[in-house]
Amino acid sequence: MPAFNIGKDIQQLIQLLSKLPGLGPRSARRAVLHLIKGKEQTLFPLIKAMENAYQNVKSCSRCGNLDTSEICSICQDSNRDTKLLIVVENVGDLWALERSTNISAIYHVLGGCLSPLDGVRPEDLKIDDLIRRVETENIDEVILALNATIEGQTTSHYLTEKLERFSVKISKLAHGVPVGGELDYLDSNTLTTALQARTLL
Amino acid sequence: MPAFNIGKDIQQLIQLLSKLPGLGPRSARRAVLHLIKGKEQTLFPLIKAMENAYQNVKSCSRCGNLDTSEICSICQDSNRDTKLLIVVENVGDLWALERSTNISAIYHVLGGCLSPLDGVRPEDLKIDDLIRRVETENIDEVILALNATIEGQTTSHYLTEKLERFSVKISKLAHGVPVGGELDYLDSNTLTTALQARTLL
Repeated sequence: MPAFNIGKDIQQLIQLLSKLPGLGPRSARRAVLHLIKGKEQTLFPLIKAMENAYQNVKSCSRCGNLDTSEICSICQDSNRDTKLLIVVENVGDLWALERSTNISAIYHVLGGCLSPLDGVRPEDLKIDDLIRRVETENIDEVILALNATIEGQTTSHYLTEKLERFSVKISKLAHGVPVGGELDYLDSNTLTTALQARTLL
Repeated sequence: MPAFNIGKDIQQLIQLLSKLPGLGPRSARRAVLHLIKGKEQTLFPLIKAMENAYQNVKSCSRCGNLDTSEICSICQDSNRDTKLLIVVENVGDLWALERSTNISAIYHVLGGCLSPLDGVRPEDLKIDDLIRRVETENIDEVILALNATIEGQTTSHYLTEKLERFSVKISKLAHGVPVGGELDYLDSNTLTTALQARTLL
């Protein structure tokens, strides 16, 4: 952002906001004006909510989800099917599944996926914790809900090898044409996979 | 945002952030994950900057700009040409001029523009303050830098009438083809204005 002549405190707030994903300098300036205009209705509640998150939000010691309690609300939910464990890369993926599907399951957040190029090794992820959970908790099936990227698939393979010795079903998300997707716009990998995994009618 | 099973404190933070201009539910979720991931480096400085803005930022009692001092840094700047007064609708417009141009001037923020439809009358704007400044400060020229909308132009006309009785030059921003703009993409009003205001070479 080019320097310009506004108070340095406002400038600093703009700069911090502009670093958030999805915000640039222009939208950060608009957001700051919006916040200062509505000090009591907008800025104050946001500060309080952020302070609350700063002080209270932690990773669930069991699954790695974020919550304000030591054990997250999903792990505490007694209505969940605790025999079904979904492994995700990060909390955003967990939220996406919770938001979009009705599945009743518990989760395990790996904290990323294996990536030799980025120097992410098995010991950097919560893989040992996962194995311990599969060993000690009464789990029937592990769904590997990792991204359909090379890193995600590598991680899936690695986890499958590690979990094979337990008497647990291991599954992964289906690949194919996204619902509502048009064939003309899909890449050849997706089309090839969808063809190979075709289902009989 | 559809309700889903994440802690209510996190959900509240997402909801507050998603109301900021430029952010929606999806980017608010990403921002919250980003903030919680970098608690000390990202969330804490942002909370401090917001608290600072909440406690200290106020409207400059002279021009209406936002700053942490009673008189803003622009009004305090002794290198400015205090004979040139630029009238803008809001602080965002002031920032845009400061950011993009090198003009040395002082400002007056109206706080909006006249709009009978939205119920904005002359007494709702800082027009009396403007007239008082033109009367008492030693001003040579008033530049009306209002938006090229119907409301902005109506306000320009109103201000021109009010300021005519003072021995002060009144000007407004030029209308025409934006620099870098292609004629083919311009609306007919802009083209007509640009034709009428053509300059001899």
